[in-house]
Formats: sequence, C-alpha cells, structure tokens
Amino acid sequence: MRGIDRAGKIRLAISLGDPAGIGPEVTLKAIASRAVRSRVEPVLVGDRGVYEDAACRLELPLKFVEPGESVSRHPVELHATSSLAKRDRRPGLPRSERIRAACGEAAYRAILGAVDLVQRGEASGLVTAPIAKAHLVAAGHDFPGHTELLAELAGGVPVRMMMAGPRLRVVLVTIHVALAEVPHRVTREAVRDTIGITADSLRRQFGLRRPRIAVAGLNPHAGESGLFGDEEQRVIRPAVRDVRRRGVDAVGPMAADGIFALAAQGQFDAVVCMYHDQGLGPFKLLHFADGVNVTLGLPFVRTSPDHGTAFDIAGRGIADERSMVAAILLAAELSGKARVRQAHAR
Amino acid sequence: MRGIDRAGKIRLAISLGDPAGIGPEVTLKAIASRAVRSRVEPVLVGDRGVYEDAACRLELPLKFVEPGESVSRHPVELHATSSLAKRDRRPGLPRSERIRAACGEAAYRAILGAVDLVQRGEASGLVTAPIAKAHLVAAGHDFPGHTELLAELAGGVPVRMMMAGPRLRVVLVTIHVALAEVPHRVTREAVRDTIGITADSLRRQFGLRRPRIAVAGLNPHAGESGLFGDEEQRVIRPAVRDVRRRGVDAVGPMAADGIFALAAQGQFDAVVCMYHDQGLGPFKLLHFADGVNVTLGLPFVRTSPDHGTAFDIAGRGIADERSMVAAILLAAELSGKARVRQAHAR
Repeated sequence: MRGIDRAGKIRLAISLGDPAGIGPEVTLKAIASRAVRSRVEPVLVGDRGVYEDAACRLELPLKFVEPGESVSRHPVELHATSSLAKRDRRPGLPRSERIRAACGEAAYRAILGAVDLVQRGEASGLVTAPIAKAHLVAAGHDFPGHTELLAELAGGVPVRMMMAGPRLRVVLVTIHVALAEVPHRVTREAVRDTIGITADSLRRQFGLRRPRIAVAGLNPHAGESGLFGDEEQRVIRPAVRDVRRRGVDAVGPMAADGIFALAAQGQFDAVVCMYHDQGLGPFKLLHFADGVNVTLGLPFVRTSPDHGTAFDIAGRGIADERSMVAAILLAAELSGKARVRQAHAR
Repeated sequence: MRGIDRAGKIRLAISLGDPAGIGPEVTLKAIASRAVRSRVEPVLVGDRGVYEDAACRLELPLKFVEPGESVSRHPVELHATSSLAKRDRRPGLPRSERIRAACGEAAYRAILGAVDLVQRGEASGLVTAPIAKAHLVAAGHDFPGHTELLAELAGGVPVRMMMAGPRLRVVLVTIHVALAEVPHRVTREAVRDTIGITADSLRRQFGLRRPRIAVAGLNPHAGESGLFGDEEQRVIRPAVRDVRRRGVDAVGPMAADGIFALAAQGQFDAVVCMYHDQGLGPFKLLHFADGVNVTLGLPFVRTSPDHGTAFDIAGRGIADERSMVAAILLAAELSGKARVRQAHAR
C-alpha cells in the first residue's frame, strides 16, 4: 500500500496554504520535529521556491525532492503545483500591496493537488496549512473555507467541523453566523445530522466502538424546562431521540456550562455544540496551542492547525508550530486507524 | 470594630439557604474545615434545629450558641430567624410533598437577618447558601434570585453577577434569558454599565489599582468586521469607548474563543461576557468545583457557592463543600481588603 513508506511511517499530503502566511514555516518546523519525523513521511504539495525560502530563513537542512529525484540527506518529497515569482513569495502583507491573487491561486492549486494524492491512495491523509480568503477570492476562487471546498471535491458530502484536542472534542451545528441567526439555523435536521456525522466519524476514523456524545442546549441551563427558550423541547430533544433510535449513544440537551468539564473528565467522547463560541470558548481555553481542526464526513482524513495565516508575524520564524505538529500527528493516528480497519474488513 | 473578632479573624454572616437543600450541610462542613476556621469567625443566620440536625448527621462536634450564651468547646454563633418544626426540617424533597412554604419562609428570613447584621456592622460580609425559587414563591416571596433581592435590600442599586475563581473572573451583561433574546438585551448602556460596575468593584472590593478588563464580542470572531453581525460595531465598541473615556482600562470587543485563555494566563483581571453560556462555559470548565458567585455593585461584600440546593442528594452528607469553602474564603479576603482601605481612608 502506497500510503505507508518502507519504514512503516504514514504518508501524509500537506498542502502549502497561503504562501504569504505562516503556513510554510510552521509546516517545515513541524516536519523537522522529532515527533513528526519518527511517525510520518510528509509529502509537501505546493511551491518549491516558497518552501526553500522558508527553510533558508529557518536554517533547516531540508532538501526538497520531486518524485523521481534522489538526494542523500534529509529529502522531503515535494509535489510542485505552482512556481511563484520571487515578489509573490515574500511573506507577510506589505501595506502597499494588500491582496495578491497569485498567492490565492497557489494556495488553491496546492489543495487540489493534495486532495488528488489522497484520492489516488498516494497518501493516507491530508493536512492543510491556513489559507487567506481575500487572496483566494482575488484569484477567482470564492468558497467560505477549506471545509466547503473539500466537501465539494469529495462529491458534495455533508461535513462538519470538529475541534479536537487531547482532553476535549467539540463539533459545531452552526459555525460562522451572527448570534441572532443561530436560533433559526438550529433545526432538528441540522442537529440530528451533526450528531450522526459525529458518531459515524468517531467510529470510523477515531476507532471508538461506541462513542458517547453529549449534546449542548441552546439556551442557559438548557432552557430550564422552557423558562428561557423552547428550542430544547422543540428541536434538540427530538433530534437526540432520532439518533438514539438509530443506536447512537447521545445524551442531551445538557446545560452548556456543565458539559465541558464532564467531557474533559472523560465522560464523553465529543460534545455537539449549537454555535461557534459555545464550543470554541471552552475548547480554546483548554487547547490554546494544540487544538486541531478535523473535517468530519469526508471519505478521507483531513486535519489542519487551529489558527490562521497570521500575516503580521509571517516570515519572522516566530510562529508557534505546535498546532501544526498536533494536526499532523492526529492525521497520522486517524489514518493509521482507518487503515487497520480496512485491513480487517478484507 | 465588630467585623473582626479578638483573634483577628473576619466575621462573616452566613445565611441558611433552603433548609431542605444541601446549604446547611455544606455550610457546616465548610466552617469545620481548617482553612475556614483559621481565618473566619462564622455567624450563622437561620434555624437552630436545621443546623443541629445537619451537625448530628455529619457527626461534627459543633455547638450553636446565640449571642450571650457561652459554651467551652467549638462554639458557633447563631442568630435564629426561624424555628422550623421537625417535619419541615427534613432534607430533600419527598415525592408526596414537593413544595414547602415553610422552607421558603425560613430561607427568606435568614437572608433578611444576615443582611441586617452586615448593614449594622456586626459582620464584615455576607455568604449565602443556595435557595429554591419554588419554596420562596410558595411563601409569597417572588424574586428571581438572591442577587435581585439583595439589590433591593441595599436600596435598589444596579448590580451584576461575577463568577470568580483563582484563574478566571467573568461578569455577565445578560444572564437568564433565551439566546434569541440576547442580541436585544445587549445594549450600549447595559454593556457600559457592566464594565463600569466591574471596574469599580475590582478596585473597591478586590483591591486592584488599575484593573484590566477584556470585553467579549457577541458574534463569532467578534463579528469579523461586520461579516457575521454588527453588534460589535454598533453597540459594544461604543460602550468600550465610553468607559475608556472615564479612565477604565477595558479592551474589546474581542473574539470570545480566544479571550479566556488570555485571561487565565493573567493578561486580564476579568472578562465581561455578553451572555450566560459565553462566560460560564469556559468558567466552569476551569472552576468546576471551586467557583464563587460574587455580587458586584452592592455596598457590602456578598459571595455564594456556585451550585444550587441539590435536593436529590441533600441530607446524605455527600455534598461537595469546596465551592462553599471558596465562597467563605473569598468573602473574607474581599472584606479584609475593604476594611484595610477604609482604615487608610480615615
């Protein structure tokens, strides 16, 4: 199987991200770390010049080789999907030139190339470095984020965003909508599908036999029997009943101020949250530097670090690579589990 | 000064709470603890029979004495504000008799008695044990909670609820309202007053010279420049500007998923949150057992444990007293600071 190299390491495709952001440097710092090197064979998908500039700035002795090339020391496999001119490779966002379509185009092509590698079985999973929406739009690629593009590339499957850390996993029913919109978007179907996708991914990708899922309420104290809002009774409770009928071990709606401590203590494998800050406030408190974004519902493993392009510090070598390290290691772990189960199924 | 006893301990009035809840037992466990005994002289305000029953069940060698009485060993000063019959002293809620007006009346009188002690300078601060709204309503006392009653007893001052723990303090702009109502209640005035009361209390009661306050946004990513909701630009930013003009060190609106980690790392003394779960989700994750509810804006110190009456486990001696211990110690600390500043002011 081509997803594993000779030393039993897991091959993962890592997409470039925005070339002007911190993606390239956190990627190189991460793949140079002992934890990643011992378990993963990275396959970079992107722009040789960008990676070479970053390696030079970071003084990392990495040598990028395209398939077929061979070098003796520290080779890193690279699939080139762009070849940016020097001026487009400058990290950060100079004031005089805020939006660069070339960066967006390079980021976009790297995603397509990396997904292609994974879909052809050349890599076991996908890790994406952060992209910048403004650059993508300037290049004519207008999608809300990685998650939506990947869902489309995978054939339009329903997906959900999970944030995963060693102590807590949260999955969101609604994400980037105004708080005033949230009650309208929290429908029985949306809640039911989120719990269903979560349960399925925890079994299939995380290898949990019978995942235990806690479902948060929408209102304070989960509405306190209808005293503050009725969405719990009207929407969330019926959705939980729906999935329980299909054998999913979900409980709720539970008061959102107690649920995270219970999950962090190990009582639940994931918490399904109704909106962005309900889930990510507690999550990022616990996992400020080591949280990983996992896309649930895709036919392949995809993770990414829990941060953006951070143009303000890009190119200075000070970006914290811990979230990228965590994203790569989690992708390797999940890919490994998926492979083991495929082997058993044969 | 009568708020301090001979040994330099701080005298605190502790109200009974609902006699059928866990209030009496966590109170006795707490005052019997070494940490509380070494720093606090508790003055119980409530019902001798209820406390004696609880002490007997817990096998605590406490002797309750009314002012003037004297005993040689382990005396605990008690101000009797009720004298419940044996059947009304039973802990828990028997199915046959769910609502007991006598319990509500006793809880109510204990609050009045304890506030009176504090207002007369007989105690330096107030700690309240949890009450049950249903019992209070049955006794003809219909108010949403302690906070509102205390505000009224103090002459109708504007108050806010703070949750305080060793690592995090959060203050809420809105509390017990449906999520769909929250955007309507988050007004410029409400946000401004909450920040103002918070700053004032942190200076006056917590003894912080120049408190640093973080203000959360309402929407994900604090609206991301209006992309998801405009309340940040329309309401919260102007409110922050208002208080900064008056010299308050407040920053925001900040994305609510990053703010708590920064506050827990010590960058801020308190986080002003727009709604219940935004603040209490992260807070209770960090302070599950040792969080303390502090009422800001009152002319005296008032704290309470961060839990309810827990009728289901009342009387079994298993209730966790840590939050009550934390509430008593914090009240002592804040009362001590207020006293020191009063002395300086003379």
